[in-house]
Amino acid sequence: MPDFLFLSTDAMSPKITVELLRQLRQAMKNSKYITEPIQAYIIPSGDAHQSEYIAPCDCRREFICGFNGSAGTAIVTEQHAALWTDGRYFLQASQQMDNNWTLMKMGLKETPSQEDWLVSILPENSKVGVDPWIIAADQWKNMSKALSSAGHSLVAVQDNLIDTIWEDRPAPPSTKLITLGLKYTGLTWQDKVTALRGKMAERKISWFVVTALDEIAWLFNLRGSDIEYNPVFFAYAIIGISNIKLFVDSKRLLDPAVQEHLELDSPSKPELTIQCFPYESVYTELQAVCAALAPKEKMWICDKASCALTQVIPKSHRSVIPYTPLCLAKAVKNPTEIQAMKMAHIKDAVALCELFAWLEKEIPKGTVTEISVADKAEELRSQQRDFVGLSFPTISSVGPNGAIIHYRPLPETNRTLSLNEVYLIDSGAQYLDGTTDVTRTVHFGTPTDYEKECFTYVLKGHIAVSAAVFPNGTKGHLLDSFARAALWDSGLDYLHGTGHGVGCFLNVHEGPCGISYKTFADEPLEAGMIVSDEPGYYEDGSFGIRIENVVLVIPAKTKYNYRNRGSLTFEPLTLVPIQLKMINTDLLTQKEHDWVNDYHKKCRETIGAELERQGRKEALDWLIRETQPIV
Amino acid sequence: MPDFLFLSTDAMSPKITVELLRQLRQAMKNSKYITEPIQAYIIPSGDAHQSEYIAPCDCRREFICGFNGSAGTAIVTEQHAALWTDGRYFLQASQQMDNNWTLMKMGLKETPSQEDWLVSILPENSKVGVDPWIIAADQWKNMSKALSSAGHSLVAVQDNLIDTIWEDRPAPPSTKLITLGLKYTGLTWQDKVTALRGKMAERKISWFVVTALDEIAWLFNLRGSDIEYNPVFFAYAIIGISNIKLFVDSKRLLDPAVQEHLELDSPSKPELTIQCFPYESVYTELQAVCAALAPKEKMWICDKASCALTQVIPKSHRSVIPYTPLCLAKAVKNPTEIQAMKMAHIKDAVALCELFAWLEKEIPKGTVTEISVADKAEELRSQQRDFVGLSFPTISSVGPNGAIIHYRPLPETNRTLSLNEVYLIDSGAQYLDGTTDVTRTVHFGTPTDYEKECFTYVLKGHIAVSAAVFPNGTKGHLLDSFARAALWDSGLDYLHGTGHGVGCFLNVHEGPCGISYKTFADEPLEAGMIVSDEPGYYEDGSFGIRIENVVLVIPAKTKYNYRNRGSLTFEPLTLVPIQLKMINTDLLTQKEHDWVNDYHKKCRETIGAELERQGRKEALDWLIRETQPIV
Repeated sequence: MPDFLFLSTDAMSPKITVELLRQLRQAMKNSKYITEPIQAYIIPSGDAHQSEYIAPCDCRREFICGFNGSAGTAIVTEQHAALWTDGRYFLQASQQMDNNWTLMKMGLKETPSQEDWLVSILPENSKVGVDPWIIAADQWKNMSKALSSAGHSLVAVQDNLIDTIWEDRPAPPSTKLITLGLKYTGLTWQDKVTALRGKMAERKISWFVVTALDEIAWLFNLRGSDIEYNPVFFAYAIIGISNIKLFVDSKRLLDPAVQEHLELDSPSKPELTIQCFPYESVYTELQAVCAALAPKEKMWICDKASCALTQVIPKSHRSVIPYTPLCLAKAVKNPTEIQAMKMAHIKDAVALCELFAWLEKEIPKGTVTEISVADKAEELRSQQRDFVGLSFPTISSVGPNGAIIHYRPLPETNRTLSLNEVYLIDSGAQYLDGTTDVTRTVHFGTPTDYEKECFTYVLKGHIAVSAAVFPNGTKGHLLDSFARAALWDSGLDYLHGTGHGVGCFLNVHEGPCGISYKTFADEPLEAGMIVSDEPGYYEDGSFGIRIENVVLVIPAKTKYNYRNRGSLTFEPLTLVPIQLKMINTDLLTQKEHDWVNDYHKKCRETIGAELERQGRKEALDWLIRETQPIV
Repeated sequence: MPDFLFLSTDAMSPKITVELLRQLRQAMKNSKYITEPIQAYIIPSGDAHQSEYIAPCDCRREFICGFNGSAGTAIVTEQHAALWTDGRYFLQASQQMDNNWTLMKMGLKETPSQEDWLVSILPENSKVGVDPWIIAADQWKNMSKALSSAGHSLVAVQDNLIDTIWEDRPAPPSTKLITLGLKYTGLTWQDKVTALRGKMAERKISWFVVTALDEIAWLFNLRGSDIEYNPVFFAYAIIGISNIKLFVDSKRLLDPAVQEHLELDSPSKPELTIQCFPYESVYTELQAVCAALAPKEKMWICDKASCALTQVIPKSHRSVIPYTPLCLAKAVKNPTEIQAMKMAHIKDAVALCELFAWLEKEIPKGTVTEISVADKAEELRSQQRDFVGLSFPTISSVGPNGAIIHYRPLPETNRTLSLNEVYLIDSGAQYLDGTTDVTRTVHFGTPTDYEKECFTYVLKGHIAVSAAVFPNGTKGHLLDSFARAALWDSGLDYLHGTGHGVGCFLNVHEGPCGISYKTFADEPLEAGMIVSDEPGYYEDGSFGIRIENVVLVIPAKTKYNYRNRGSLTFEPLTLVPIQLKMINTDLLTQKEHDWVNDYHKKCRETIGAELERQGRKEALDWLIRETQPIV
């Protein structure tokens, strides 16, 4: 799945916000929350961990304005209310917000930035408030600078003002924790802490404040389900050279399995003793740690951490980093994780082979819809061992809906699958052993020549990345154009990146690597990293094509080895047939032709064996038919 | 030529600097130049215009330490003297500097930054001096910040302290100016000023301080020869909505041709009247302009401009831009410039065909050396109409010398051309109608299979870029990997960028576009831009291969036109045969095969006609033989 978020399933009628805005404006003057009235209040869309997906209790921007897209910032002043979002969401935002709100279309020349807009409408010497927990430190800095230079000030409002008016706000989640053994993780959390401390010592760092939820989950070999699709749980950690402080709802630690896993009662070594604190006490505990720092001690914190936590650390002790060592360690999968990811992908392919075999039988009946396929896919996946849930909402789209890149079927858009239209399904799951994400584009009747031509260009791009050989140290963005060359040759393109990092029973989108023209600050690809390879083509109003595999970075054997740098390439983990009917084989080179046959041979052998083992005969027949070599 | 600079021809013995350092340290305490003694003095390598190539009077860093590479910064304190340079120059710098100097090897982990080093050795509350004219504003800012946070301060020393001790410092050049008519430029300077003012008005900018020498030369349709290889002249300009202030040595304006060209006596319109000032008065005149600014007026200055000039402009009026509108306008060549560049490349190809025909005859005699080929190439070019000089020092390299990417033949390294070694020549010239830059790699005997294999991979990369089709708005760095894919497949690579912008009778390296993995801030490619396409492969100690054409960005016709974005591709301007003997045709695809034949057909037709016209029979025979189609 390309890396952007999704609509929720709410219908598209505007939310009535008159009363909410009145209440919020009162709160902005209420001395219970703030010492002096504020003239504007900023409502960003994130949570305290800058998560990509957020829990219902954190959907504050949606609550105040009605717009529920993934990206957007609301600002409310005494007279105005405005929402900034980008081109993907102009239509949706305008439908979901009532006329108390002004839509600020980001990316258009005439649209002012939040800073410029505030400066243009605020009375002199205004105070602008924001919750310091849900704004990242660098965003705070930029906004604060812009406001100060115009005579205003940005102030941290400790009580979130939305929460004060949100009567039925969902409680913060506190789901049961899952402990993961060595069989899945390859490394104990103790080993991971020790390795992390090694990296800290190398850079003379004595403390590290861990704020990203997937980093905490990975470090402690724990999972949760606080956020839909992402098996994470709300927590913070502060790791010292001889301390481990974990901040998490204490109820969660009553579970004996968790107690044992974390060795809460009988730590094996003193420096591996976990001190547990309530989630909320991270602020005061971090203050205490900082108060005891020796003059030259340094503390790591990620640049995506909240302003609130970042500012606790005195500047002289603060070392702000773009990617933490945990982010990097987590991205390079160890042999156990790789094996587990392979297993998860085999099971996922079994479910998809079954799905496609079922679709071939069912579609002619005329009762299969985008939503029913998504449901069927989930049902089939859930039959597989160690299934936990989906890794993102399934994109199931027929014909013109396929051209909406961030489509998700809703009852009012739901189309029926037929023999006449292209069908695109982008789906994935969480298993205890791994995370999957796969897109296939198929036709159940006879595709047009143009559909086949476009599909074949996308396939050529997919193969160009998958089969690319490149030196160690190459950043993923340097491979992005390989995926586009065949499309470009014919004047076509797609307006999203080509790939993103994929977690191992963790977030389906993770840093610090990817394959996209949009970034330059990605980290180099390394053997063991796992990314998606998903070029596409979208013909507005007509059809969408995307071919996505999850691929593993592996060392490549090359004829020569310039300066002993070594080379890398990719191995597909996703093993689901690519529909031959959609390929115009005349457009393939011999090398591409061979790649397709090799890939299908591997699908047949690996998935065939598992289908056989599971006794899924129909799917096996389908697989064998769909993986015949092209000549 | 890849974009880095060259060694000068000085021999490699260390410069004795004891006495010079003593004098400089005295100057650092001399109240004649500074109010308070400074504890360190920074000597950057640039000139007041941040030129890539500099005039002899500006070689201050070389003067003080002996090291004459293109990149490097010297810092002298009361006790220490240190030079920072990068990996290309470690050996050279260590050979050219005596043991008063410490070589700081940039890029190595253990090497401190200039800031860190200064902080580690300076006594408390030190003052560090630098000439504000030869440090860019953003460099000043970074250095100043780092020093202040450690309790020191960066101070601007108006008198350059090196100049005070440099007894035989060459006078700043003041060469004769060349006026260029419409035939070469396509636009009068008046039209260019008017267009510039249009861009300024669009962005509500009332003044623009022009500091880059090639921008001034381009704007006024004037050329000089103040800096070797670059037809520019020392000047500044300040362009207002109704003013033109030109700062240049007044002697240069006595030339009646220049007077007439600039309409100094009888301007056609009041707003096109050029006010001339001495070069040195730019500072005081800019102060005067700034003093008269209305409150909301904004002034453009490039981020590469000197700290001295940048700081004259009050912050509230200053708009610092990475690429000026002149840089962008200059990069997109107009039809007249394109025609002129084509003509220059035809003449240049004539000279090279003659050179190669001559070499074939002469090499068996055993008397042809790297230096003599370079001389011969210059002689042949100089016979062509409107020849002005070389556009950079010729890289003429035999066998292992070819693997030194920034090689330039010196008497002590000079090798003889033979039938046994690969020969690489990278050369170019300035003609009144255009600038050329071409590299060919040839063998006069029988190349080895390995040499042919490597050459063919480089050729495949060259073709992949040259024949690439890509959407409007694509930045050049996205094409860089196309040039490497064939090399990467075999585990090979080259450690320089793939292409740079080329001026039209201007600098052979110009911004704001290029084709390199190293940048992300380049401007998108546009039809009319001219860049080089020059992948290579270098086998240390053995041979070097590079195939370089100058190519023009042109609109491409594609089968489809996604979102009406339009597509671009390249047309080679360089028309010199690529040696067939070096190609392993088995490694070419049909498309590459056709490209070679099409290219050679164009060489034969276009250059053949000119050779015929010039009556150069031997070269014509050579051309016809070398451009036979491959089968």
